[in-house]
Parts: sequence; structure tokens; C-alpha cells
Amino acid sequence: MQLNNLIDLDQLSLAEIDELIHLANKIRSNPWAYRESCRGKIMATLFYEPSTRTKMSFQTAMYRLGGEVIGFDNPENSSVSKGESLKDTITVVSGYADLIVMRNPMEGAATAATLYSKSPIINAGDGGHLHPTQTLTDLVTLYNEKGRLDHLCIGLCGDLKNGRTVHSLIKSMTRYEGNTFVLISTEELALPQYVKDVMDAAGCRYRELTNLSDAVPKLDVLYMTRIQRERFASAERYEEQKGVFVLDSAKLRYAKKDLKILHPLPRVDEITVDIDDDERAKYFDQTVYGMYARMALIFTVLQNAAIPAKKKTLHSTHPYQCSNPKCITQTERYLPRLFKEAGDMLECRYCDGRTLI
Amino acid sequence: MQLNNLIDLDQLSLAEIDELIHLANKIRSNPWAYRESCRGKIMATLFYEPSTRTKMSFQTAMYRLGGEVIGFDNPENSSVSKGESLKDTITVVSGYADLIVMRNPMEGAATAATLYSKSPIINAGDGGHLHPTQTLTDLVTLYNEKGRLDHLCIGLCGDLKNGRTVHSLIKSMTRYEGNTFVLISTEELALPQYVKDVMDAAGCRYRELTNLSDAVPKLDVLYMTRIQRERFASAERYEEQKGVFVLDSAKLRYAKKDLKILHPLPRVDEITVDIDDDERAKYFDQTVYGMYARMALIFTVLQNAAIPAKKKTLHSTHPYQCSNPKCITQTERYLPRLFKEAGDMLECRYCDGRTLI
Amino acid sequence: MQLNNLIDLDQLSLAEIDELIHLANKIRSNPWAYRESCRGKIMATLFYEPSTRTKMSFQTAMYRLGGEVIGFDNPENSSVSKGESLKDTITVVSGYADLIVMRNPMEGAATAATLYSKSPIINAGDGGHLHPTQTLTDLVTLYNEKGRLDHLCIGLCGDLKNGRTVHSLIKSMTRYEGNTFVLISTEELALPQYVKDVMDAAGCRYRELTNLSDAVPKLDVLYMTRIQRERFASAERYEEQKGVFVLDSAKLRYAKKDLKILHPLPRVDEITVDIDDDERAKYFDQTVYGMYARMALIFTVLQNAAIPAKKKTLHSTHPYQCSNPKCITQTERYLPRLFKEAGDMLECRYCDGRTLI
Repeated sequence: MQLNNLIDLDQLSLAEIDELIHLANKIRSNPWAYRESCRGKIMATLFYEPSTRTKMSFQTAMYRLGGEVIGFDNPENSSVSKGESLKDTITVVSGYADLIVMRNPMEGAATAATLYSKSPIINAGDGGHLHPTQTLTDLVTLYNEKGRLDHLCIGLCGDLKNGRTVHSLIKSMTRYEGNTFVLISTEELALPQYVKDVMDAAGCRYRELTNLSDAVPKLDVLYMTRIQRERFASAERYEEQKGVFVLDSAKLRYAKKDLKILHPLPRVDEITVDIDDDERAKYFDQTVYGMYARMALIFTVLQNAAIPAKKKTLHSTHPYQCSNPKCITQTERYLPRLFKEAGDMLECRYCDGRTLI
Repeated sequence: MQLNNLIDLDQLSLAEIDELIHLANKIRSNPWAYRESCRGKIMATLFYEPSTRTKMSFQTAMYRLGGEVIGFDNPENSSVSKGESLKDTITVVSGYADLIVMRNPMEGAATAATLYSKSPIINAGDGGHLHPTQTLTDLVTLYNEKGRLDHLCIGLCGDLKNGRTVHSLIKSMTRYEGNTFVLISTEELALPQYVKDVMDAAGCRYRELTNLSDAVPKLDVLYMTRIQRERFASAERYEEQKGVFVLDSAKLRYAKKDLKILHPLPRVDEITVDIDDDERAKYFDQTVYGMYARMALIFTVLQNAAIPAKKKTLHSTHPYQCSNPKCITQTERYLPRLFKEAGDMLECRYCDGRTLI
Repeated sequence: MQLNNLIDLDQLSLAEIDELIHLANKIRSNPWAYRESCRGKIMATLFYEPSTRTKMSFQTAMYRLGGEVIGFDNPENSSVSKGESLKDTITVVSGYADLIVMRNPMEGAATAATLYSKSPIINAGDGGHLHPTQTLTDLVTLYNEKGRLDHLCIGLCGDLKNGRTVHSLIKSMTRYEGNTFVLISTEELALPQYVKDVMDAAGCRYRELTNLSDAVPKLDVLYMTRIQRERFASAERYEEQKGVFVLDSAKLRYAKKDLKILHPLPRVDEITVDIDDDERAKYFDQTVYGMYARMALIFTVLQNAAIPAKKKTLHSTHPYQCSNPKCITQTERYLPRLFKEAGDMLECRYCDGRTLI
């Protein structure tokens, strides 16, 4: 499997995802066999916004393969604060490290990095856009806990509007046969239309509910996420509604025996602590699966990457500026403007945002 | 020696402490023999409050055993700042790491962590409560520098009221035969009664002095600590008294030739710099002993830990809340309330605080 | 080659510099042969002011030699913030680590550290004073890109007054035969007289220009640096002049085909992005050479260091205080006052500052 960068899980075929899942399981069943497999390799973790959890998972994965880690997680302490461009940082760091794991608040930043990096790039989150290693984690968890990735009834609860991990998981699961979705949120925080379009295009059935209790009994999988207080329409609405989306033992009473509860963590109070002892709670195991998923990914990328010694300079395909205010091209103005034509729209190659010509 | 967690040095028998001291010396005399002994193991350092010195000592110890280190030392950059509970952080990190070293400002936090961790916990300081690896460091230093841990006249100087390391060292040294103590501080900063009770119960003699010069000549060991300026009764008292507790060459003039001077560091100005060249000054050697003490501890815990795969959920023993405002149960409300009955008092299993029923 | 500390590149003979350059190239051509050469060794990076770039370069170098790294880069999180002296920090850390790499805002700090360290010290920048590993990086780059270090016409452009790397590079290049210099800056930011004195003493020709375009055609090497906006005489002067010192393709039109463009990085906008694709641009390669230069240095220092077990205490040579307000002796008052007599001046052994007696 040839994998130069992981920017978006959708870039992989189902066979390739399958290969990663099986490698994760192989490592998990015999981690000792892999403990020297990346000896002498260096991974850089460039975290332009902090995320201790994701960073620790990647670091642990690399150490368990025998490699080393450099990086920063505090941009104020880095050259970035002296006004250095993403291009320069990536060019320099890819001269030090064999692999770059990168989180950035701007959408499309990881794609932009691939234009200049001499080493493979793994996207560890680019703003609200993509977070493919979380989705790979979710797939490894589901495969192991349910035995399959198809014909599942998947509930997703919480802030479905802004939940990047929710969007990615839905998009991936529509690629497997027979999956149906139950979307549980307030009206204000409902799933965006473009994700519904993906389900429709794939012929996946889905229902929208504003109540977790009603949804639980039918589910094979419940994917919980946090609703931030400030995302409710008002303080009154928050007080009125908050309990509706909290998973507690009362709401679990009529759940299936083989339901599996996932959560990308950190949790605040959307799952009560007593659920942790329920055998259906898998959100802590999920973080361990995530470590093995990242080991499989790092191993694959370092074994099979074929990055050209000298990158070709790309030129703008169109004279327009992407209209997404969170697109990386807004802050890094030297980036070539790369679009795919889609009818009378241009789709940005960095952030996937659409601009009317 | 079976050692699952190190929360409090008093949990160990004297034979076990002896075993750790001897292992530390064995490693010190032949470090090269141990340099691969923890290869493939990962230690997490979770520092909820910064302590560069303690962290570097633990990191160095782990690296010199061939292991790797993950962790955080800046809670604002971590999931903790998103409101994650201690339980969740510990559950997740113990899925990544083979060992957790933890410092937390709340008393009893390390004990609380053991309820959820799948990996051994080493307490690197829980508020003003315990700091067992500093005391182990002190014991290794004394054993090597004095040749014994009994029949010593031990002076302790500085802030004896708030000095966590002082309390722990006294408690440990009362377990050895024939030790006597000289307590040197202002009246306001005298040793708390409960530590005096420990000495009394062990039959150890002690004297209280308000003057370092008078104390020095009789001592085998002088344990210096810092008095923070703001701990004096007033600014005038500080100006008046500060010199009385500063060790300088004049005060050392009548000291024994085989006196050993210790200090947990960092020092500010309570020992003048010229003392550093005196052969009796052992506070810098003490940090090196500390590294070997931590190597012995990490080695032992990783070799012999037997943590059950699935932790049993504990239930509250009493319906009360611990009355210590710095107890970890004050902020982590899901913790079971665990007490030991002691007459008409309840002794908290986390912070050792006593609550009247 | 016996190398105990690297404080100033001028402490090395040309033969020793040559040896380091050749070792860097040997490692570069066969890095795999060195990947275990520092296994079991620990390097401490003590960064009293942040510099992600320099720190990552050192870390990568150590990891690629098989060693480990401890340290701090945020003094507020360290014991330093509790008022610990440089002496104590260095004494303790040199008990943990086999090598200390240190950056400090005070001039002469690295020299001060050598008085107390049990391990070799590498100066990674002491205020505006010295930054020898950047200069070593520049020399390795020039040697490889030009094939020689003599008979070069070297342009230096930007803030020549405050540019520490510029001063060091000039001083080193005057030691090789036949080098000439073109100094390009505003009048306010011209090279200090003492560096001109060095060129004069070495018999090196130099010219001063206030215009980059005029200078370019004759150069074999162009060393670009940043001019900070606030260093211009006024906002108007900045607007008026900024373009004059920006390297763009128009200014490169009449440059030699084998010109090599260097920059210590980070760059802001003093080189336009399109130059990056020009084959003469070597500033990104320079960072890779820098990694190999640091590998050579670490390897040499760890192989051949002969630090005495017990340091001799030095005593002040003169009763004066160095008059340089940025000298480390201003803040660390216990340091012995060490001077070299130079006519009616005293030259400080720490910061090289001169004080009239």
C-alpha cells in the first residue's frame, strides 16, 4: 500500500482502510514484534493549537514503534511567532524529521503542507475541516467491537452541526453497505445539509430526533459528543434542554445488549460517570484502539512513502481567491490557488470550500 | 518485592525501603548494566502544576533505563483545561503508558488516581500532603553519606510548619532506632503537633530551637529548607530574623567534621554560596542520589507490578464529605467517599485528613 | 580533538574547524553508521529564552545519534522562576545529563556555566554575544556549496549592527585567506567598528553599500538577514527603505550563476518567496547542514570530553565589576570577576566586554 500523506480518510479505498485496520489489530495482538520497527526514525508533531490528547496518542504510537519525536505545541514559543510562514516551517522541519504530524486551526493547512514537505504529512486536524485519524480510530473500534462495519444502525448525539468527527464518521460509514443513521440533536445544532447529501447520494436511510431516550433502543452504536453550552440558542434553552442529550442509566435501560457507546473524548458531563462501568461503554477502549490505529498508520507511511526528492512547483489553476474565511489560503497568501471545477462552482483543493465563479 | 503504586513512603516496610536503597546503589555502581532494562516501556509524567526539577529527575531516570516519556506540564495546554476529570485523564493515559508519575495540587490526588489506573502510579507530590520520592532521595543520601539510618542527631531548619519534605523525613526517620531531632525555626513556623506526636509515639527525643548557631555543633545531619519571606509574621520580623536561619561559614565553625548538609532544593539564599565548596555540603550530590533512587523505583514498579486488568469499582464507606478543603474529593465529586474510622473521627483515605462525625 | 566546551567558535583552530566540517560531511554521507553512537547518553537543552528552531535542530541531532534529551524552554515553568541561580541549575542538571546545550539572554552565561558544570557546555546563544553553532552551520554550508572557505566575495545584507550571526561569520571568515566583504545596510544599522577592526587586522578588504542591487553582481555568497521594522530610524524611513534590502528576482538578474544565498532563518519578507525555487537559494539546505554540524559537534564533545570530576573554585582576578549591563555577572553576583588585562582596559572573560580601569 502506497501512502505518502494522510490528509482525508476518503482518499483511501475501502481495501486500504481494511489493510490499516488489520495492521492495527496485528500490532495490537503482538506489539513486541513492532517495537523496533521505526528505530532511527523521527516524527515531528507540529501543533499550532494545543491538543494534549491527540499529541500523546501519536507520541505513544511512535515510541512503541521505537522512533523518536520532536515538535512544538505552543506557537508563542516557536519561530511561528516571529512571523514565519507555514511553507518555511514545513520546509525546514521536513529536513529534520522523517514524518510530520500536524494540527492547525486553518482549513486545508495539511494539504498546503504537502506542497513543500520532503516528508510525509499526517493531518491531525485542520480547523473544523478534517481529522482523519480520529475517524480511523472510530473504524478500528467499531470493527473490533461489532465485528463488522456494515449493516449497523448508528446513532450520533450532540452538536452535529459543528462536530467534525461526526461528519467524518458519517461520510466513512456511508461507504459500507446497509448502514443507517439516527441523528440526535437540537434543531439549531442539526447535521449540515451537505452531510445529509452524502447519505442521500449513498442511499443511506437516516432519521432526525431531538430526544436521546427515543433513539437508544434501536441502536447498534451510539456515538456521543459534547454540546458546548454557548452553542445553545440561549441560556434558558440550555437549562431546559441540557438533560435531553445526557446519556445516563435511565436512558440506557431499553438499549440493546450489544450496543457499543463511543465518544471522541474529552467528555464533560454528557455521559454520567456510572455508565463507565457498563460493559457497553467503549469510549475508553476507543483511545487504546486509537493508539494502535496510529501505530499502523505511522508504520505504513514510513515503510512505503515515496516522496520525490525535489517537489514540483505548482501554479494557480484559477485567478480567484477561495471564499472560505477559514481557508489556509487566506493567511498564507503565497499558496498557489488550486481549484477543481464543479459546474459553476470552484471547489478549493485545500479546504474543499466552494466558491461561485 | 511487590510494589504496585508508590503513594506514601510509609506504606513500605523498612525491609522494602532497604531493598530500594540497595538497588539504587547497585544501579549507581554499574548504571550501564541497567541501560536497556526498561526498553520498550513508556512513563507518563502528568504534572498538574509545574516542577521542572522533579520532572527532569524522573525523565532522566527513565531514559537511563532505556524507556521513553510522554506527558504534560502545563495544564492550560491540556484536555484538563476543557474540564476533563482526573478519572478520565488517568483512565486514558494509563491505556497509553506503562507507568504514571503524577503531581497535583490537591491532597490525595495520587490515591484517587490508583482507583482508575491500569498502570502503576508514583506520587510526585500531592499538594502539601506527600512527596515520597523526595524522602526516598533523602534516605538514599543519608545511608550513603552517613553509613547508617539510625542513631543520628538530625537538625531540621527553616519553615517546619509548611515543609512537606521535612514532615515526611521525620516520619521516616522515627522508624529507625535511636534517632533524635533538633527543630530550628521561628515560633510561627514550628513543626505541627501531629508530627511531634509521631516522634513521641516512636519514643524519639527532640528539641526546639529558634537559633541555628546554637544547634549546629551537636548535629550529624543538617537538613536546610527555605523560609519564604511571606511566611514571616511581618516585614520587620523578616528583616530582624532572616539571618538567624541562613547557614554561613561562621555558623559552620563549630560543626562536626562528619556533618552532612542536605537541602531539597531549589535554594534561594538560606545557604551562602561559599558553603558549596565545603566537603560537608551534600545538597548537590543529593540530587544525583535522587536520580538513582528514582531509577530503582521505576525499575521495581515496572518489573513487579501486578495491576488487575479490570479494576473493581469501590463504593463510599460513609455518607460524609471530607472536611479538608484541599482534599481531591472537593473537586472530583464522583470519587467514592472512603474513610477509616478512628474513634469519633473519620480519617480520609485520600488525604489522611480527619473529620469529626 | 579535545573539545570540552563550545562557547565561541574562535576558540578552535582552523584545523579543528576543518575536522568538525569533515565529520559533519562523513555523518551526512552515512548517517546510519552513527545512529547508535550516543546510545545511553542524555543531552539537556536549557533554553532560558525560547528558540524552537535551534532547539529542534539540536534535538534532532541528538536523536539521530541515538541519545535522549531532557530540558526546559519556558523559564516560568522551571525552578528558575523560584529564584534559583544559574550556578545551582547548572550544577544539578550536569549531574543528570552528559551534555548541556544552553541559551540565555545574558552575555557570557555559557562561560559562567562552564565554571560549575560536570558535563560539557555548548553555547546555543548568549544574548547578543555569541552563537557558535549557527556560524559552524554557515561554514559547513559554504564549504559544501562553494567547495572552499577562502577567496570568496561575501555580501552581508540587513541589520549588520545587531546581527550576532553576521558578526560571528565575518570574524570566522577573516581567518581564511583572501576573503572580501560587502556590507549592505542602512547607515543606522551599519557594522560596528569593532568588527571592522577585526577585518582590518586580518588585512581583509571590505566595502559598505546602502543598496542591495548594486552589490549583487560581484558576490560569491549573499548572507541575508532580517531588519526589524522597529530598528529603522522612523516609520517613514522604514516605508522609504524597506524594499532596498529585499532580495527579489529583479535584484538577482545580474548575479553570478554560482552565487549561493544563505539566511539564518526565520525569514519574514526580506527574500521573496519566488526566490525559493532558484537553484542559488541555499537557506533551506543550510538548516540541514546545521543538523549535521550539530551531530558532529555533539559526537565530538561526548567522545572526547575530559571534564575534571571536581572543579577548582576560581577567584576574582580584579576587584571591579564588568561595566556591560547585559553581562551575566550583573545578575549572578556570586560569579568570580575574571578579566584579561588589555592596556588600560579590562576585558571580561564572560562577555568579552571592555571596562576602563
